[in-house]
Parts: sequence; C-alpha cells; structure tokens
Amino acid sequence: MAAEPGEIADKLLSRQILNEQVVIGRTESGIPFALEDRCPHRFAPLSIGRVVGENLQCGYHGAEFDQTGKCVNVPGQSTAPANACVRSFPVVEKQGYIWIWMGNPELAHDLSSIPACFYRSDDPAWDGGYGHFESLNVNFNLINDNLFDITHAEYVHPESFGAEEMRIYRNSEPGDAYVDQKTTYTVDEREIVFRMQSLNMTGGPFYRWMVATSMGKDEYVDPIDLDMEVSWAAPTFTAFLLNARPAGQPREQGVQVSNMHAITPATEYTSHYFYRSVKDYGPPELIEPFMQGVKAIFEQDKPLLEAQQLRVGEIDLFNQKPVSFAGDMLQQQARRINSRLLEAESA
Amino acid sequence: MAAEPGEIADKLLSRQILNEQVVIGRTESGIPFALEDRCPHRFAPLSIGRVVGENLQCGYHGAEFDQTGKCVNVPGQSTAPANACVRSFPVVEKQGYIWIWMGNPELAHDLSSIPACFYRSDDPAWDGGYGHFESLNVNFNLINDNLFDITHAEYVHPESFGAEEMRIYRNSEPGDAYVDQKTTYTVDEREIVFRMQSLNMTGGPFYRWMVATSMGKDEYVDPIDLDMEVSWAAPTFTAFLLNARPAGQPREQGVQVSNMHAITPATEYTSHYFYRSVKDYGPPELIEPFMQGVKAIFEQDKPLLEAQQLRVGEIDLFNQKPVSFAGDMLQQQARRINSRLLEAESA
Amino acid sequence: MAAEPGEIADKLLSRQILNEQVVIGRTESGIPFALEDRCPHRFAPLSIGRVVGENLQCGYHGAEFDQTGKCVNVPGQSTAPANACVRSFPVVEKQGYIWIWMGNPELAHDLSSIPACFYRSDDPAWDGGYGHFESLNVNFNLINDNLFDITHAEYVHPESFGAEEMRIYRNSEPGDAYVDQKTTYTVDEREIVFRMQSLNMTGGPFYRWMVATSMGKDEYVDPIDLDMEVSWAAPTFTAFLLNARPAGQPREQGVQVSNMHAITPATEYTSHYFYRSVKDYGPPELIEPFMQGVKAIFEQDKPLLEAQQLRVGEIDLFNQKPVSFAGDMLQQQARRINSRLLEAESA
Repeated sequence: MAAEPGEIADKLLSRQILNEQVVIGRTESGIPFALEDRCPHRFAPLSIGRVVGENLQCGYHGAEFDQTGKCVNVPGQSTAPANACVRSFPVVEKQGYIWIWMGNPELAHDLSSIPACFYRSDDPAWDGGYGHFESLNVNFNLINDNLFDITHAEYVHPESFGAEEMRIYRNSEPGDAYVDQKTTYTVDEREIVFRMQSLNMTGGPFYRWMVATSMGKDEYVDPIDLDMEVSWAAPTFTAFLLNARPAGQPREQGVQVSNMHAITPATEYTSHYFYRSVKDYGPPELIEPFMQGVKAIFEQDKPLLEAQQLRVGEIDLFNQKPVSFAGDMLQQQARRINSRLLEAESA
Repeated sequence: MAAEPGEIADKLLSRQILNEQVVIGRTESGIPFALEDRCPHRFAPLSIGRVVGENLQCGYHGAEFDQTGKCVNVPGQSTAPANACVRSFPVVEKQGYIWIWMGNPELAHDLSSIPACFYRSDDPAWDGGYGHFESLNVNFNLINDNLFDITHAEYVHPESFGAEEMRIYRNSEPGDAYVDQKTTYTVDEREIVFRMQSLNMTGGPFYRWMVATSMGKDEYVDPIDLDMEVSWAAPTFTAFLLNARPAGQPREQGVQVSNMHAITPATEYTSHYFYRSVKDYGPPELIEPFMQGVKAIFEQDKPLLEAQQLRVGEIDLFNQKPVSFAGDMLQQQARRINSRLLEAESA
Repeated sequence: MAAEPGEIADKLLSRQILNEQVVIGRTESGIPFALEDRCPHRFAPLSIGRVVGENLQCGYHGAEFDQTGKCVNVPGQSTAPANACVRSFPVVEKQGYIWIWMGNPELAHDLSSIPACFYRSDDPAWDGGYGHFESLNVNFNLINDNLFDITHAEYVHPESFGAEEMRIYRNSEPGDAYVDQKTTYTVDEREIVFRMQSLNMTGGPFYRWMVATSMGKDEYVDPIDLDMEVSWAAPTFTAFLLNARPAGQPREQGVQVSNMHAITPATEYTSHYFYRSVKDYGPPELIEPFMQGVKAIFEQDKPLLEAQQLRVGEIDLFNQKPVSFAGDMLQQQARRINSRLLEAESA
C-alpha cells in the first residue's frame, strides 16, 4: 500500500517505501504515478516540484519527467540529455487505495497480492474514513503481530473493545457457534481467517455503541451478541468484521463495522500504518464520531509498539528467544506464511 | 540511588540505571521492587502495565510477575511457561530514598555504601523537598567534580551563593577557625569532609536569605557569619551543611540548610542527578520558596555541565590532559578514592 | 567569514568553523578575537564566560585568557599554570564582517582571499542589513552551486526575481548589449563575473519594486530595463548587482541593489550561510521592507537545499554521476577553480 487517494488529490506526496524515497502523484488527466524522488540533475527531491499536464516538473530547474521517469524537457535546451531519467514504479488504484509494486516491474501485472479482505474499503454500501500513522518507529512484523492478536484488546483497549468477549470466548465449549476446539480458523497459502462469537455480552463499550447508534440512541443497556471475523492476508494486512445486535436477534439484523489495517515498511525498523474504517449503517453525521472513536483506539497501540521496538532493539524479536503463550498461535502461523513467501520469492 | 519515594507513590517508574532499563514500583502492601523493564513474552516494557496485588501485570497481554521476576500468571492459560521470568534487583528504602543494587545480589545485604551524610534527608527535625534531573547528558564524574567544588559558585552562582565566602576563605590565615593551611578536611576510605568558615560577610544572598527568613524578615542587611561543611562520599554523593547567623552570634544560634546531591549513572555519558534540600527552621509556608530557590540555583549547573560534556566528548576528561588548578585538590582525591574502590571491586 | 559585527557587539559568539568550535568576541577596547571554545582546565566552553578588560574569563572557574589564548590569571593562585592555553585564530574586520583564518597563522597576513566583490558591504553610499542561516544541513558546494546559478530563480523564486529575465536572456541574439554567444562572462584565477541585460520587462516583481520605490510609488506598471552582474569569488562568495530603471532610460539613472552571499563550512555537511543586502537609494524607512523582502526570498532556498543534501547523502554529488544541463557551465567552472586552489594549497 502506497497512499490514500486523498494524499495525492491536489499535491505530490513523498514517502519512503522499502528504503526507497518515492514521489507519488496524479497527472492532470488523473493517472496515478510513482517515481524515484530525486532529480538526476542536481538531486533535488522531485516532490518539491509540480505536475504540469501529464509530466512532473522539478522545482529546482524545471526539468520535466513523464510517468515512465524519462526526462522530456529541460528549459533553455532543445533536447533533454538522453541519460536523464529516474526510476518509475508501477502503481494501481484499487479498493480505495493507491498500491505500488517495488519489485521486478515484469511481475507487477499480478494483482493477487492486493488483499481480498479489503474489499469493503470501496464498497458504496459502506461509509467511513481513512487514517494512518506515518513512519512509526516499529518493524512491520511487530505491528502485524499486534493487529492479528485479539488477546491484547483486554489490556490495551479495555474501555472500547474491552475484555468480555475474550472471557466469553475462553469459556466457550468446543462446538459452540463459531468456536471449535477453542478456535475456529482457516489457513490457506496467504490468508488466515479466524472467527469468534460472544453471546449475551454486558460489556464491550464499542460494540454496544454500534447497537445504540443503530437505534439512534445514546446508549443501549441490555445484553448484546457479537460476531467477529478477523482476516489476515500476507504480508501485512488485517481486516476485522464486527457484527453486533441486541442479544438473541439473528445475525442478519446486526449492524456491521469493518476495520482494515495495512502496514508498509519504510525501512526495516520504521513502518507506515494505514487504517480504513467503514460501517454499513447510520446517517452521514455518524461518520465523524465513528472515525474519532476508532482513531482514539488505534492511537493506543502506537506508544506501546514504539516502546516495544525500543526494548526489542534492531534485532528480530524471534532471534532473542521470547517466551510464547497459547494466544500467539495464529500470529506465529502468519509469520511462517511470510517466511515461506519470502523464501519462495528469493529463490 | 534509584528513585524518590514520590516517583513510585501511585505509579510505575521506568528508569535506565547502569545501562539497564528498570521498572520500579511498590506492591499494594507497600513493598518496593525493581524488575528488568521488558516482558519476556513480546518485549513490551512492563512499566506500561500496573500493579495487581503483590504482582506486576504486563500492559500488553496481562502476564503477571512477582517481585522476584517470576511469571506467576498468563491469562487464558492454566500455568505460566516455566522459562518466563525477568531479572529482579534488590531494593531498599532508606534515608528518604529508594536504593537499588545492580551488582551481585549476594552482596546486596551490605548497606554501608548508602552514604551516612544523607542522614538529614529523613530526619523529622528537618523539612524541605526533593528534585532531580532525569538523564542529564553528562558523565557522572563531571557532575561529581562540579558538586564537590565550592570554587565554581563564584562564577556559576554569583547571585545566590556568591563569591564573598571564597574571597574571605582565600584571605584567611592558617589557624583561623575552621581553616588550617587554607583547608580543613579529613579523608577516610570512602569519604572526604571539608569545612570552612566565613565571618562578617556582607554578601552571600542565599545565606542572608536564611538569616532574614529565620527572623521572619524579607531581608537582613548587617554582616553575617557562615559555617559550611561539605561531605563527599564515594562514589557520587555530596552533602552541604550551611549554618548562618548574624555576625558574632554563636554557631548554636545559627539556622541550618542541608543540600544533598546524588548522581546515578544511566549510561556512561548520561546521568540522573538527584537533590534533597532541607532546613531546620521556619514555618511550612517557607518550604515552597526555599525549594524554588534551590531549584533555580541547581538548574544553573545543568547547561554548563551539558556544554562541558560536549567539549569533553566521549573520552574521559583525564585522558585528555586537562590543566589542573589548586582548587581541584579535593575533587581529584575523590576521583582517586573511586578509582581505588573500582579496582578493588573488579579484583 | 566568521561573523557579522552585530553578533559580537555585546556578547560572545560560539560557532563551529571547519570542524573547530570557536568563541568569537571583542575586548573592551574593541579588538575582535577568536579562541578555541574550550577551557583547558575542565573543558567548559569559554563562550559561557565573559570579557573582562582585554581578556576572556571562563564562566566555570574564572580563569582568564588573553587574545593569544594564553592563560593570564587563575583565581586564588599567584600564577597561572604555564601549560594553560587555548588555540587562537587570526581575525580581521573588513568589508562589514569579521573574517577568520583557520589555516597556518603565518599565512594570515595575506588578505587577498577576502573577496573584492563584497566591497559595497561597508560603502557608506549603500544601506541595508545583514542576515544569516546558522548551520544549514548542506555541504558548502551545493549552496555555492545554488547561488551562482540564476536559472533556478524561475522555479524557486517565481514571485520575486521571476522568470522573465531568463526568457528574455535565452531569446537574445549574440551581440545584444551584455550578451555575447548567449553568455558574457570573464574568468580569472579566483573569480568569475557574468553579466546579462533584460530590456522591456513586464514581469520581475522584485525589480519592479525597486523602480516603484525609487519613485516613492507602491507599484510601477510600465516596462522596465534590468542589468544584472553576478560575481563569484573562490571559494564561496557570490555577489549580485542589480540595476533597474524605467525602460529606455540610461543605465546611470537606474537604482541599484547588491545582494552578497558567503558560505562558511561548519563541517563537511553543515554550513553557515551569510547574506548582506544593500541598496544605493531610498529613505531609511525603506530598509526594513527591503530586508524583509530579501530574507523571504533567501529563505525559499533553505528547505530546497536541505532536501537536496538529504538526497545527495554524505557523498560528493559529482561522484554520483549527476546529469548536467547547459545552464550549469559557470557553476562547474567555479567548482574547477576551487579544486585547483585546493590542490595548490595541499601541495
């Protein structure tokens, strides 16, 4: 994931992605592009320039580059030097985001690594908002672990997601709806989907807020039922689907929220963390309090993750013999999927 | 020295001490503890957690550790993994502070290195306050030199301690009270005590403030007499005892202030600088202006010390052939005591 | 160039020059001096001290140093240690600045490297002001390139110097006044002078402001003529002389502005950038808006240069095969002059 559409709506964006500094923008006709953010002339960042028609003009001496990175004009010269060019990166707009391919350009046509679990991001039946943290001082694996880990909510988000669903889940018997041998999940080559159901909850402030606002009320005090589906997709995507309703009502009557998260490494130890939160109910006025609410929750992980990275240091956590708990099983499967894909790609 | 009691009164404290990051707190029953500030599970800082009964609970996934650092509970598991533990450090509460032992725990029972010269810190006949500078960018030796050096007051604190006592002292004849061969001091294995007396001072704003406030006045304009006793104890403790009174009155009629200073290395080139200032006179309302006054004075050394460290660089000052002055004698004796103790400890 | 006179008018200045930290000041009798900014006693910066008569007194323990760097007094001692001294650097006041010589002191008498093109800086027929950027994170060569490059004005300063003069210049025929083979310039051993003329300009907001204010008007809408002379002198000096007047009037009737720029390396990748802007017309009230105007223009280069340095990295730009354009010819000649001088000096 390279950018939110709003980040390049009327300006150029300079972002470090996999150690490369990239300028991302949109031509006047609307085509998104991504170039190496360094003019080959005097190495000024092209991101201080501007879009001129279908080209990007350097803000230092006015050299112009097309979307392939070729210099097509130098002011005061009849022709541009033949060796004047910058690297360009394939980009595509999909599921409400700009996606970039940093690897071999010949493989860029394969869009299968854009995660299906983000599909609600640009589904018109859902509304909501965007958010992201630029250059968190955290390795992407640590954020990945955090997102695909519902057990931390009990300690990090006690006043929103809360603890009750985990207590109910832990006390469920195998065979309960959505729960089999304590965990219902499926694993395929690059995706893991995990489902749990919590019935007759009296806590869970965020889920209660969903039920209350779906009724136009400020609060809802009776028990509620909650279904949660958590989809992780390699390498760094996690999507939550929450379905909440008054206890005893069928799932189809529930209102739904989907929180989608993506991590893009800036460097090995810094990462961009994007989130997209949408819901399938409520009037337009509900969007702002909804987004303020999820932003406040996701911001609780930021200081924790950065503090964790400081303690981990610039060494992979798993090279330092951490102790593992039962609740780590799925994140560790996700790490194994990534390792396998990385190995295959390197081969 | 690890912490002021107020720093762990109702919260956890994370502090770097001798290159280790330590979480310091107090259990519900009031026992102070110090543990490695890194959960063995995912390396989150334990200091973002909270005290639960006699244990410390991690703020990420809820694992609980007792005061010995052993993991005694993991949520959702019947038993904690046997290898889940963190290092613990012996701590003791004494003389108004929490003290930590970072070395071999078997030697922690010997409390003789807690300096006797801090005894007024928790003497109920004295009142005052605490203060400290967290992580000054200064090696502990440079701060030690500064504190056990009364000659810098003339240039760094001219409008409080001032210059007059040094001028009187320098002009004293051997044989004057408290002055013998220009310096009255005693040296033992880990302590140096230095005494000087300044009679008929017309300057010394801080000492005059002592005399004035002891009389309930805003100022006192007649000459005053001052006795000063400076006790340095290895490795990093300096205590000042000031006795001031109208000139000609006996010492026993003087009012007294004691400023105690302790340095705890965070790393080789960063240090925590604690101070405790108390006085043996005056109503409770005098405490606040007293503490504001000493804080303002001690803050004058901070920029000087950090600037000095920048010029010294990350090399020991004495490996760079500094020029020494006559006034450096006692600080150099203190450095030699520390070297000797360090050598004995390393043997 | 070491300092503006105003920077040492009533205080000491600490500045890093060619990797040395230097304290620059003026004795009570007015003589400028420059010493190593580190007391040989405990390595406190001498710049936290103060001038006492003709000496500099350390702010830590009061040791005093004369202008040659010799310690001449230690409080409480009859004599200063013979080995107590700091390095001193030759300084001279000329052309409205304090100049320092960091090399072999025996060569300091040769003032020929103080650039003649700065002569208007202390000519009483010109008035204006000073400005500088302390420790820009930019290598001096990149700033040099920028200053002796009029082609960037079109893109970096479009609303002040503007683009029109470059368009006129590019379209001039050889043989036009000031234009021969597209460029009129002279090169000598350590100086390059370039001249251009733009007639009948309808743009160029800064030049129009010159003409308007010379008439006491807020704006001037008719065409103007502009002569520009750009003098570069090794190693890091660039002076602009602008002559603007209503179109068709003789050069002698024009009003003039001179912007002089000097770069002093702090380290290899940080630089102090000084500028001096003067004009030969207008009432005293015009100085402030004039200086605000030029400051706003020169501040436009700062973020560009620092961003460029980030992209260049800590490697010389020309070791990274930049593409060059026709407009780079003169800056590249300037770089060659500097290389030649450096080689001669190293030999």
